[in-house]
Amino acid sequence: MRTLPVTTARREQLVDITRAVQETVSALGCRDGICHVHCAHTTAGLTVNENADPDVVHDMLLSLDDMVKNLRGFRHGEGNSTAHVKSSLMGAHVSVPIADGRLALGKWQALSFCEFDGPRQRHVWMTCTPSL
Amino acid sequence: MRTLPVTTARREQLVDITRAVQETVSALGCRDGICHVHCAHTTAGLTVNENADPDVVHDMLLSLDDMVKNLRGFRHGEGNSTAHVKSSLMGAHVSVPIADGRLALGKWQALSFCEFDGPRQRHVWMTCTPSL
Amino acid sequence: MRTLPVTTARREQLVDITRAVQETVSALGCRDGICHVHCAHTTAGLTVNENADPDVVHDMLLSLDDMVKNLRGFRHGEGNSTAHVKSSLMGAHVSVPIADGRLALGKWQALSFCEFDGPRQRHVWMTCTPSL
Repeated sequence: MRTLPVTTARREQLVDITRAVQETVSALGCRDGICHVHCAHTTAGLTVNENADPDVVHDMLLSLDDMVKNLRGFRHGEGNSTAHVKSSLMGAHVSVPIADGRLALGKWQALSFCEFDGPRQRHVWMTCTPSL
Repeated sequence: MRTLPVTTARREQLVDITRAVQETVSALGCRDGICHVHCAHTTAGLTVNENADPDVVHDMLLSLDDMVKNLRGFRHGEGNSTAHVKSSLMGAHVSVPIADGRLALGKWQALSFCEFDGPRQRHVWMTCTPSL
Repeated sequence: MRTLPVTTARREQLVDITRAVQETVSALGCRDGICHVHCAHTTAGLTVNENADPDVVHDMLLSLDDMVKNLRGFRHGEGNSTAHVKSSLMGAHVSVPIADGRLALGKWQALSFCEFDGPRQRHVWMTCTPSL
């Protein structure tokens, strides 16, 4: 298992970590299999989505904010309950196929770290499992 | 890694791909492990849910539509921001156990491709990793 | 593949299954790899989130309830469509890295079974794949 640091700069942000993950896959020498990336935090997550137009990221964060409202009934003392919910909606992990040493992603796909309670110093854990 | 084509017929649709995935697992000869399926698109996703009653699919799409609203603040020029958000909510991949050569799914579970910006010609990538 | 029973006591509930999953990882003797956990039901799911403050669980269930409304247009006869939607939002599986025989989870992370249509007797399936 390898640790990759991720530094976030804002309260909510998507950070494209595709390149760093690819470099680690290459360093590990995995040719074919699955690359598993785990977010070790409960107010952040991971997703695979658009890599090109930053407006998609803007719209994604706006949509999550509209969807996950700050409710009167919330009890959690830290006041970041919406960040926990968004974390579970995106998920704490993604896994991506590795084919011939490269992450297999669609033309418009990137692997992004989703910060919902930053800015913070974060990290993800990477594990590669070989395929048949 | 194997590629499976998926043809969608409507703007939003769930396509049950369980049988095609099972056939590929059998062709690969995987007995025990994990079958990973990756959706290579940013306006579609994958989920494991009800296989029997088509009304559940209807209600799922209706609910996602109610939840992910077309907001005034959206900037993405293509006008399909809700499809990107729904893609991340469902997720770009699912993985399913393989036991004795068969996908291990619950009695009512199917593996479905989720189209949110069709109709289109789509594809998924399949990878099998053996278990201990 | 190993089966772990999960008993739920309420209509909606998060059950922390981290300890039971860890015990099975130890019993299987997996040192390094990925632990895959599959929820075999369509009105329940799995997530990795806060392990410490029960108020986070309360707020998570409240938020999902606010987000996934019981719509007039629903057709599914069993009346549990929101449970199916919440199931897909959380996801039917999680996978967690295993490092040196231990589930690699962040300080505040737990692996939780998400019941949305209980109380019921449920089960999850566990599979371990070794890493490079």
